[in-house]
Amino acid sequence: MPVSAPVTMSATLAVDESLARRRSAGEPVLSLAGGEIGLPVLPLLEERLAAAAGRNAYGPVAGDAELRTAVAGYWRRRGLGTDPDLVVCGPGSKPLLFGLVLAVGGDVVIPRPGWVSYAAQARLAGGRAISVPIRPGQGGVPDPDRLREAVVSARAAGRDPRSVVVTLPDNPTGTVAAPETVRDLAVAARDLGLVIISDEIYRELVFSPETPLVSPAVFAPERTVVTTGPTKSLALGGWRMGVARIPDGPLGREVRTRLLGIASQIWSTTAAPVQAAAAYAFEEPPEVVTRIAESRRLHETVVRAVAARFAAFGAALTPIQATCYLYPDFEPLRDGLARTHGVRRGEELTALTAERYGVGLLPGTAFDEPEHSLRIRVATGRLYGESDTERVTALSAADPLRLPWIKASLDRITEVLTDLTGPFAPGRADTG
Amino acid sequence: MPVSAPVTMSATLAVDESLARRRSAGEPVLSLAGGEIGLPVLPLLEERLAAAAGRNAYGPVAGDAELRTAVAGYWRRRGLGTDPDLVVCGPGSKPLLFGLVLAVGGDVVIPRPGWVSYAAQARLAGGRAISVPIRPGQGGVPDPDRLREAVVSARAAGRDPRSVVVTLPDNPTGTVAAPETVRDLAVAARDLGLVIISDEIYRELVFSPETPLVSPAVFAPERTVVTTGPTKSLALGGWRMGVARIPDGPLGREVRTRLLGIASQIWSTTAAPVQAAAAYAFEEPPEVVTRIAESRRLHETVVRAVAARFAAFGAALTPIQATCYLYPDFEPLRDGLARTHGVRRGEELTALTAERYGVGLLPGTAFDEPEHSLRIRVATGRLYGESDTERVTALSAADPLRLPWIKASLDRITEVLTDLTGPFAPGRADTG
Repeated sequence: MPVSAPVTMSATLAVDESLARRRSAGEPVLSLAGGEIGLPVLPLLEERLAAAAGRNAYGPVAGDAELRTAVAGYWRRRGLGTDPDLVVCGPGSKPLLFGLVLAVGGDVVIPRPGWVSYAAQARLAGGRAISVPIRPGQGGVPDPDRLREAVVSARAAGRDPRSVVVTLPDNPTGTVAAPETVRDLAVAARDLGLVIISDEIYRELVFSPETPLVSPAVFAPERTVVTTGPTKSLALGGWRMGVARIPDGPLGREVRTRLLGIASQIWSTTAAPVQAAAAYAFEEPPEVVTRIAESRRLHETVVRAVAARFAAFGAALTPIQATCYLYPDFEPLRDGLARTHGVRRGEELTALTAERYGVGLLPGTAFDEPEHSLRIRVATGRLYGESDTERVTALSAADPLRLPWIKASLDRITEVLTDLTGPFAPGRADTG
Repeated sequence: MPVSAPVTMSATLAVDESLARRRSAGEPVLSLAGGEIGLPVLPLLEERLAAAAGRNAYGPVAGDAELRTAVAGYWRRRGLGTDPDLVVCGPGSKPLLFGLVLAVGGDVVIPRPGWVSYAAQARLAGGRAISVPIRPGQGGVPDPDRLREAVVSARAAGRDPRSVVVTLPDNPTGTVAAPETVRDLAVAARDLGLVIISDEIYRELVFSPETPLVSPAVFAPERTVVTTGPTKSLALGGWRMGVARIPDGPLGREVRTRLLGIASQIWSTTAAPVQAAAAYAFEEPPEVVTRIAESRRLHETVVRAVAARFAAFGAALTPIQATCYLYPDFEPLRDGLARTHGVRRGEELTALTAERYGVGLLPGTAFDEPEHSLRIRVATGRLYGESDTERVTALSAADPLRLPWIKASLDRITEVLTDLTGPFAPGRADTG
């Protein structure tokens, strides 16, 4: 039985639901926990979905040919030549990641910190997660040297690591690992005979060409599976659609056969109308490109403004290069937090912000950090407005930070941080 | 590692894809293999999906409140009072069945014959399937007496059966197990401490009130999970949506918690626009009720006409009471098939019909029958036309069997059976 302990709900979704209950009870909340992107569907994609509403056939397990061709083009334009037959679609990249872990089997090396579901998926698939720390600023990629040590010692202890997961760009740190780090990881994976599962769902949300994203599929093409989807770039999480790019060659063929077998037994296929609309998105017509560019700029502006506030109050922070996440460390404020609030652990800190201020945050433990860590993940994707009108306005605003609803959230963050740290570490109230 | 052997693709989907390739190569095919219902989406539901295309939020893991309330009403109208909080939605009933098997853990008792994916899902979840034969005519329900023997002896051998799956009405036999059989099964499950997973996806496709479907949830409410969805009744397989009804009480609470944890880690939620349209379907407005009634009548007319042909050529058949499946046994023709065609196994028979006639069928092995069995499953849901116009015409035709495209398929079946059995068992060519 692979489920050896009670299965806990995905931490992000659990906090989301808790805040939703508070909100429906009329209490003020500030949702900085979930990874959902609070932006509306691009009207052109809404139209495409509506036009495909009559599609009710299952279609191929791997996804419709039209979709797979569009996705292959998307990757080709990013320097990764892709055979449409090596594209596999699923109802989200999450089920694809689970299917891949199940297909490859064994234990899974994951980065620490790392996305909430990697370790849980490894356990559900009957294996275990081997957590390897990242190098500073190289979020999402297990330190290649420590990876080697961890795999060798795991094997010596009778464990069976067969894959390594990387997140490029990274959730939770909002950083993009440097090409040299990715190359070292790829070489280590090859030396160790590991399959690389590269979760690149945030690829379109890298802010600057100065922090280029180079996929491990460039360095170890024979062993790297890449996953992505329109969930983050086009705010389509609720549509549930993702894709995987399977490597060419014998290992890839084996992975593909097993993944399709698993997919056919667990979820069959992906909602056909959604596939049709997603195919159009992956063709990257100008409207889609513009929308993604606008979203990226909005994320960058807001996440940096929020990061500046946390830094001003004394939390340690790596510069944010992508996504809409920051991962401040309250370690420099440990003494004050303990003295004033009795807070000694990340979970106590996030419980305090939720209960006292209605601010939803995720503790580092949700990303596999130790309990005493005071790192927390802050997600800013829900700050763009409550209505579609506000959100569309934010997308095209010259200075989104001056929009009243965004400014109010930023002020609230300052207020909460002031109240939280004021007794011991008065922040610079003029920040931002 | 739960995947101890290569994972084979779901047999129905694999045959579907093989026939699709033949068709696209211009070869004539007759698809009697896959469980897909070849009917168009009800326009009202298409409109509902289109109207919900802007819904892009994840929403609760269990499904939107509106949907869960509608589904609770659906079950309440069938005598099963249901708390909306005990309804869980997923991207198909297939992932829900997998999630349930994983949530309950251990080994799974399944009926033989039984749907292709039950045993595969048990293996993927790290358990094993314990296959128990049905009583004659009581498809989908493991013989309660043999279930007791099998579970006792499995436990004595150190195995850990924790659940039993039933299919009501049944795929592949097209029968509805009698209430007494279901009651005996429920009592046995209670005595043995098994969770009952009742797959009732074909519930709306029972032809006559003379064969009432009584769910095991009536007899063992504390331990029965029921699953269903609009896939079969409304031909919405490609939309990927299903629901589970969790039992009230301590066991149900435990199953729900674990299932939601698993769902949150594997698939998150179900496509939000699909949930909105499905909620409307589960409210059962008059148009939906009428469409389902028309579909049921069409299935009944065509599946019975096809069954009459197989019977006329000497295959053994149980009367069809539901679904659009028949499960003829060519055992009475074994000598002739062996002598004339060298066919001694079900898989040889279906390979012969596919290669020589382009007729897709599933062998009994796909339903866990022994290799020498000459049972095959025939699915008639794809005989209603190639275009939506033909299919809509079939839905409302006074005598669908006289429509040229349906008549042509029936004639082709007669032709194939004549050619197949002619040398040794000339059929009554005047049948039907």
